[in-house]
Amino acid sequence: MPLFAEQADAAAASGAFIHQATFRQLSDLYLLSTGGYRPVTRFLSAQETASVAATMHLPGGEPWSIPVIFPIDEDTKRRIGSASRLVLKDGDSIAGALHVEDIFKIDKSRYAQNIFRTEDEAHPGVAWLRDAGDYSVAGSVEAAADWQFDIPGNLPISPRETQAIVARKGWKKVVAFQTRNPIHRAHEFCTKIALETADGLIIHPLLGETKADDTPVDVRLACYDALVKNYYPAEHTLLAGFPAWMRYAGPREAVFHAQVRKNYGATHFIVGRDHAGVGDYYGPFDAQHIFSDFAPGELGIEPIFFDFVHFCRKCGGMASTKTCPHPREDHVHLAGRAVRRMLAEGKKPPNEFTRPEIAAILLQAAQAA
Amino acid sequence: MPLFAEQADAAAASGAFIHQATFRQLSDLYLLSTGGYRPVTRFLSAQETASVAATMHLPGGEPWSIPVIFPIDEDTKRRIGSASRLVLKDGDSIAGALHVEDIFKIDKSRYAQNIFRTEDEAHPGVAWLRDAGDYSVAGSVEAAADWQFDIPGNLPISPRETQAIVARKGWKKVVAFQTRNPIHRAHEFCTKIALETADGLIIHPLLGETKADDTPVDVRLACYDALVKNYYPAEHTLLAGFPAWMRYAGPREAVFHAQVRKNYGATHFIVGRDHAGVGDYYGPFDAQHIFSDFAPGELGIEPIFFDFVHFCRKCGGMASTKTCPHPREDHVHLAGRAVRRMLAEGKKPPNEFTRPEIAAILLQAAQAA
Repeated sequence: MPLFAEQADAAAASGAFIHQATFRQLSDLYLLSTGGYRPVTRFLSAQETASVAATMHLPGGEPWSIPVIFPIDEDTKRRIGSASRLVLKDGDSIAGALHVEDIFKIDKSRYAQNIFRTEDEAHPGVAWLRDAGDYSVAGSVEAAADWQFDIPGNLPISPRETQAIVARKGWKKVVAFQTRNPIHRAHEFCTKIALETADGLIIHPLLGETKADDTPVDVRLACYDALVKNYYPAEHTLLAGFPAWMRYAGPREAVFHAQVRKNYGATHFIVGRDHAGVGDYYGPFDAQHIFSDFAPGELGIEPIFFDFVHFCRKCGGMASTKTCPHPREDHVHLAGRAVRRMLAEGKKPPNEFTRPEIAAILLQAAQAA
Repeated sequence: MPLFAEQADAAAASGAFIHQATFRQLSDLYLLSTGGYRPVTRFLSAQETASVAATMHLPGGEPWSIPVIFPIDEDTKRRIGSASRLVLKDGDSIAGALHVEDIFKIDKSRYAQNIFRTEDEAHPGVAWLRDAGDYSVAGSVEAAADWQFDIPGNLPISPRETQAIVARKGWKKVVAFQTRNPIHRAHEFCTKIALETADGLIIHPLLGETKADDTPVDVRLACYDALVKNYYPAEHTLLAGFPAWMRYAGPREAVFHAQVRKNYGATHFIVGRDHAGVGDYYGPFDAQHIFSDFAPGELGIEPIFFDFVHFCRKCGGMASTKTCPHPREDHVHLAGRAVRRMLAEGKKPPNEFTRPEIAAILLQAAQAA
């Protein structure tokens, strides 16, 4: 039975439980209900969660690397009682429903070890899991027909819309690029190199929650817009949004990011150094090595790997450790911390590191902060 | 029966015909006998030649795009008479033998139309065919065990040796680059972009005959050496030689160049703009389109296509028409003719066009000429 806003009270009266959803829950609802998480289309059961965590496969054999769960705390579990469905509220509106099939206790220790490869609470994914409820609701979902998922920016965010643009452009080989940061020249280089031998490029920033010290999403959006307008060919480039939240699960999240991009119409997916990583929890190429745990073609999308990338004065341009033979002193290297310090001091990072248009936006944002 | 130098006179006495081979015939003998032309291992028959010319496949179904023939003139045909084999001489030494299975008249008009897509004698391939004999000798070959094919430079030229180096380096994804010119920044860019997502790069200059106005081979060799030493990473780069002669058959030769590189250990092959083209006989991307005439995987080597490549002042580096959105006035474009004029006038082409080390070699060669 579809759920409309005016039915909320009736729903409550009929034994449904009204649940004020978190942003992360809404994001997962949106991606589950639009096919963004295919082959996963529902919040996973205990058995499915355990299977994905242990084997990176669903019990039916399909590859999947990060369980999609719906954490609730003990009090919420008690209040849900025997309700057969949750009405998911997004502020004052109704976002959809979750049909309760089971409520199970999350094995947090195993989840953290398998998904994050650590139980260190300094890891933002582990911290999220610690603070999330101890139980998860399993079941199918439906989004309300009139629900608009409110995500920053005006980019297309649904798999169907993005697929339709790709089809209209007639692209066959389509590379997707995941990012949660402003795109500097190193990542621009990766996307363009991948595009050289493809038909189209989807610049696909993650627009959901990131950790506090990542660049705010509105600043990032201004950067993406300026970069694409000034440095990318319109006929081969699509700037679209990915309305998910960061897990910081490194290798596991690289696989997840790739599979999701297949649902958005991509055939290839860029995996650079330390993809979806944080701190020193993962080796710089762990997120590339993990792809060899899958059979060729199993994921339905091909990863494209990149080495360390830098501007090299001897090469006179961007290059990677793979293609540049010159020593480190010829390279322009800037760590994230150094860039943040420059910006805080009102200094513009050099053109070898980032485009002047991006530097200007970041500088303005740093000064306003 | 193997053939050694001291057996030459005996061979002649036993009814073999002594034939002073041309460079092109020796090149084909070398590549046939070393597996460089696999699946072709012999000079083709009339039927095989017609099949390859008409269908780009041997009668057995294997793909092959340029007939390997052994042209002789009418007088030679008469003198061969009923000899069962030709002893092929390379100067004073014996290079090998061709076991005569048939001598047939070459259908030059059909050959030219199919292979060169023109009968215009201004086309160097058509001119070669016109000047070659009217007949071709079909049959298997063997190279003399002590024959050294004398090709300029000291690069490895045999498929086996090149394959062994690739195996020793442990490369799995191996990109080959064919060239008959000094490598300027546009082609360096193509090779490096291809290398970014591969394990190794074979820079594989064709070292046999090219047309008179192409850069002489010794000058090219000095350029390759300087470029690889100064701009390529040793652990991912192999400079090897391809001892064939240019056909200038554009699209057909692109397929031929790709298939041959599979025999040298490559898995991927770069096809840029107007590959193996000359004048305006082929559209700039005909040599890419022809690959879609083959079933996926049929050639056993994957082409990698590139668009027009240039230095862009706005991009601040190399880019292609595919990835650079800026107008032509931001690009550094230099036609071959303009470069030759600069060199003749003692002017160094700019760093945006070619590396200074290459400019210096070309300038010196132009001044010495």
